[in-house]
Amino acid sequence: MSIPASVEARGNPAARREHILDAAEACFVRNGFHRATMQDLAREAAMSPGNFYRYFESKEALVVGLVERERERGARLVEEMERSGDRRGALLDIIARYFVSITRAAAVLRLEVWSEATRNPAIAALTARTEAETRDWFTATFSALATSPDCDPDRLYALLAPLMKGILVGRAILPDYDPGPAVTELHTLLETGLDGRLPRAVTAGPPPNG
Amino acid sequence: MSIPASVEARGNPAARREHILDAAEACFVRNGFHRATMQDLAREAAMSPGNFYRYFESKEALVVGLVERERERGARLVEEMERSGDRRGALLDIIARYFVSITRAAAVLRLEVWSEATRNPAIAALTARTEAETRDWFTATFSALATSPDCDPDRLYALLAPLMKGILVGRAILPDYDPGPAVTELHTLLETGLDGRLPRAVTAGPPPNG
Repeated sequence: MSIPASVEARGNPAARREHILDAAEACFVRNGFHRATMQDLAREAAMSPGNFYRYFESKEALVVGLVERERERGARLVEEMERSGDRRGALLDIIARYFVSITRAAAVLRLEVWSEATRNPAIAALTARTEAETRDWFTATFSALATSPDCDPDRLYALLAPLMKGILVGRAILPDYDPGPAVTELHTLLETGLDGRLPRAVTAGPPPNG
Repeated sequence: MSIPASVEARGNPAARREHILDAAEACFVRNGFHRATMQDLAREAAMSPGNFYRYFESKEALVVGLVERERERGARLVEEMERSGDRRGALLDIIARYFVSITRAAAVLRLEVWSEATRNPAIAALTARTEAETRDWFTATFSALATSPDCDPDRLYALLAPLMKGILVGRAILPDYDPGPAVTELHTLLETGLDGRLPRAVTAGPPPNG
């Protein structure tokens, strides 16, 4: 889909930035981070390379922009939750909606950013910061929403964080992946954890039925 | 670390294949799939390009070789379990050992293969086949090891598959990631699931304490 050149002339800088990030997302998802060149990215955004560089000076800067946009979207979901009269219900609802409605492109982009984080120090630092912020937010929220002193926010996050990541991997790598069943389990564990009723860890010794 | 050229002349074809796969793994992990060229890969294996091509004709063929090697390693773990007098204990032990002892390089390679699967049809087909085989093996094993008719192997796999993937992502993207707590939760859910005691899914209506 080509974009009329007039788009470039119209619109405010924020709208242009959004337009460029949409184009970069599409290009990274289709070609991967390393095969996409700045020229490809400018072409995808229907902009001259000179103008394009005025907004983002490198592919890394575009990845930073995409990660920041994802963070802003997360912040809006959090605001929605905070405004709700039923914060716990809102959290469950938002998580379910997020994982069921995520597009394959968004999941592929996440995988691409993670993969790049394993080698690119700037993206690694960004990823580590995002992970730490996410952990802090979730554990604080679990503490606030717990309905039992037996709720252990750190334990609940240690369980749910990889489960959430794995749902995104499934969505990215398997075109016919249905996140529904995993999201139902995520939901159940979240409720159970907040109520302090997560299954107990098995300690030494043979299992009761073993 | 350079390998003496004499390595190339010595050894049987199977040993050379292993040596090449080790070199390819190191090179893909360090540079990513797309930045590694066949020349880089031959150099890493301390082989002439001509000789190198006799073993693997493309980067895709190397990825297929690496995925097959991973599958063979999995098959050996399964044999170990089958030989054990306590299959359930052996399964729990093998899973715990696998996720706690996996190297960061192995986790990064897995992320690289997943990322490549989102765009490369041959790698996508290989990934889909591996995922289907893994699912079939786990659900059949859960059925065989269940200690309660309330164990639902499909439900248990829908929960554990993303959790296992997410642990690998954590290991790959966060150098200081400790898989211990997540593996403890995985263990607990596996035992609980086989005993038919997974927490129940929440149905419509407000939560009991909400």
